[in-house]
Amino acid sequence: MPPHPLDQELPKHVDAALAGYLADRRTLGARMEENFGDAVDALADFILNGGKRVRPTFAWWGWRAAGGDPDSPLAEAVLTAVSSLELIQACALIHDDLMDASETRRGMPTVHVKFTRRHRDEGWLGEPERFGLAASVLIGDVALAWADDMLFAAGLPNDALRRLSLPWRDMRTEMLAGQYLDVLTQARGDTSPDAALRIDRLKTAAYTVERPLHMGAAIGDGSPELVAGLRSFGTDIGVAFQLRDDLLGVFGDPAVTGKPAGDDLREGKRTLLVALGVEFGADVLHEALGRPDLDVATVDAVRAKLVEVGAVAAVEERIAALTESALTALDRAPVAEPAAAERLAELAISATKRTY
Amino acid sequence: MPPHPLDQELPKHVDAALAGYLADRRTLGARMEENFGDAVDALADFILNGGKRVRPTFAWWGWRAAGGDPDSPLAEAVLTAVSSLELIQACALIHDDLMDASETRRGMPTVHVKFTRRHRDEGWLGEPERFGLAASVLIGDVALAWADDMLFAAGLPNDALRRLSLPWRDMRTEMLAGQYLDVLTQARGDTSPDAALRIDRLKTAAYTVERPLHMGAAIGDGSPELVAGLRSFGTDIGVAFQLRDDLLGVFGDPAVTGKPAGDDLREGKRTLLVALGVEFGADVLHEALGRPDLDVATVDAVRAKLVEVGAVAAVEERIAALTESALTALDRAPVAEPAAAERLAELAISATKRTY
Repeated sequence: MPPHPLDQELPKHVDAALAGYLADRRTLGARMEENFGDAVDALADFILNGGKRVRPTFAWWGWRAAGGDPDSPLAEAVLTAVSSLELIQACALIHDDLMDASETRRGMPTVHVKFTRRHRDEGWLGEPERFGLAASVLIGDVALAWADDMLFAAGLPNDALRRLSLPWRDMRTEMLAGQYLDVLTQARGDTSPDAALRIDRLKTAAYTVERPLHMGAAIGDGSPELVAGLRSFGTDIGVAFQLRDDLLGVFGDPAVTGKPAGDDLREGKRTLLVALGVEFGADVLHEALGRPDLDVATVDAVRAKLVEVGAVAAVEERIAALTESALTALDRAPVAEPAAAERLAELAISATKRTY
Repeated sequence: MPPHPLDQELPKHVDAALAGYLADRRTLGARMEENFGDAVDALADFILNGGKRVRPTFAWWGWRAAGGDPDSPLAEAVLTAVSSLELIQACALIHDDLMDASETRRGMPTVHVKFTRRHRDEGWLGEPERFGLAASVLIGDVALAWADDMLFAAGLPNDALRRLSLPWRDMRTEMLAGQYLDVLTQARGDTSPDAALRIDRLKTAAYTVERPLHMGAAIGDGSPELVAGLRSFGTDIGVAFQLRDDLLGVFGDPAVTGKPAGDDLREGKRTLLVALGVEFGADVLHEALGRPDLDVATVDAVRAKLVEVGAVAAVEERIAALTESALTALDRAPVAEPAAAERLAELAISATKRTY
């Protein structure tokens, strides 16, 4: 049997749901206040020009794992509900870019930079940077508020909304707690592996994989055993996924990652890889971390040292162990739909496999 | 008959609902991540140490106007639902203070200043101001997300939640659109009376009075006539309330307002009063607006000029006309509970009367 179109081309359908929702909100917003349309346009551009729709994908397959039928009349509502996760992610990224003072994302100017430039180009009053800050804070807030609106108006039955309110609540707070811990850990200069793993668990595992799966299973009224199994799978895969991303941030091919070689080192990211490197005595890291002018020779020296002291092997081992335990949890979970079990296993493997 | 305790001491009950909710969320948050407790504490301090609970009050009386009974088992859920408005307001103020770079609010350091100082006191890595920015962005986001959580978990019946989802949706967007228009208007140096009134309609009228009343009436399943009447009352009273506040910002007694005399002039606020002053030729305004070092003599000169050119009289006339039309709308609205009609009329008069 060929895959269902919604299963097959999920990101395309998520894009369409988001485009439709944002167009409706733009009409409503411009009716409230003409000038607000610009802010909505900036948000729509940000959301519709990129992103892999990872969170809606896990949420969708959580629903399918609970026996959700893509041919049922409910499928459209579920698609809208899971698409709302991209609005939360837009808030997280727009505010994160402001907090990190990042200039670009996906090759485009970040939202605060866009509005800073607009202020400068128009020759408006006051400091351009302050205008950029204000616009990006407010546009992120709009995204966060609209995520709730989109979920609530998706057309889900009341009992489904009630069931998913708990993972929805915890997911948003876990994301924000993870961001806060990340900022605090950098400020404190805490390079411990424990701190790195706690951030990974909140920001990537809980927010990106575990809770979206939980949400989807809750919509589909999955059994407690299914929910527990999917969450266990999600936590392990989420951390493994982040650890793979950390390795790519140092060892990845710029042609594949789209970022300059060693960019994570330049940004001074406190990853488990870096934490283990420090713990295992890769002293060259202290010279390299957080230096915007880091040259290729030092990046190469850091790479060699991270391999030599065994940090890379330790992270690889952990990825392998986490992937295995995740797949075991998935295997034991009472997944109602074989296509879901298959697709989740594929997602787990493709997100954590070595690509450099 | 003596007033019901909930009607009589509503702000106290709102405080208790907020304290209880925030304590529960702190326990949950600290379980997620110990260090997140500090962020929750900063939010709780901000919310519980001040504020007149204006929005919950209007929402409560909207419900009472629709016949909501404070002795019914539903009253507790309604109290919780209307209290959630203070979480939206916390987000608005915390983010607004950051955008305006305000140092204090209600005599206390603002959230971004608090975290900037903490960073400095601890001697952490990186720029203290950047840490303050990040913490205040995230804590405002937490407040916005929790507002939705608190509303959804208030215990309202499904049909009430469905009915209030529309005013809830529009209220949050109106607040953010109003903030955006405010920032944009200042940047553009737009001193027109029209721009000032549009900001007042979104930020104060819709967000502070009209939509809270609408929400309350929606919970109570008020008729379309009641909803229309309360909204009309709320729009007019909300604008009048802001215009009175604008007059107090320039003419208010520091002993009463708690702010230095002429503080709105120093901040360069673009109010209708200022817009009309400019339009009527009070040129001294150009020397005064937005000057942090503005002296008392110039404040006095501006005051005299605003009276002389007729800007004060024009604003007073408008307040009187708006208050009258609001009270007429209230009078015509099919308010189910006489105590509600009485209390709303009192609120209208006390919020808009001359106090200097």
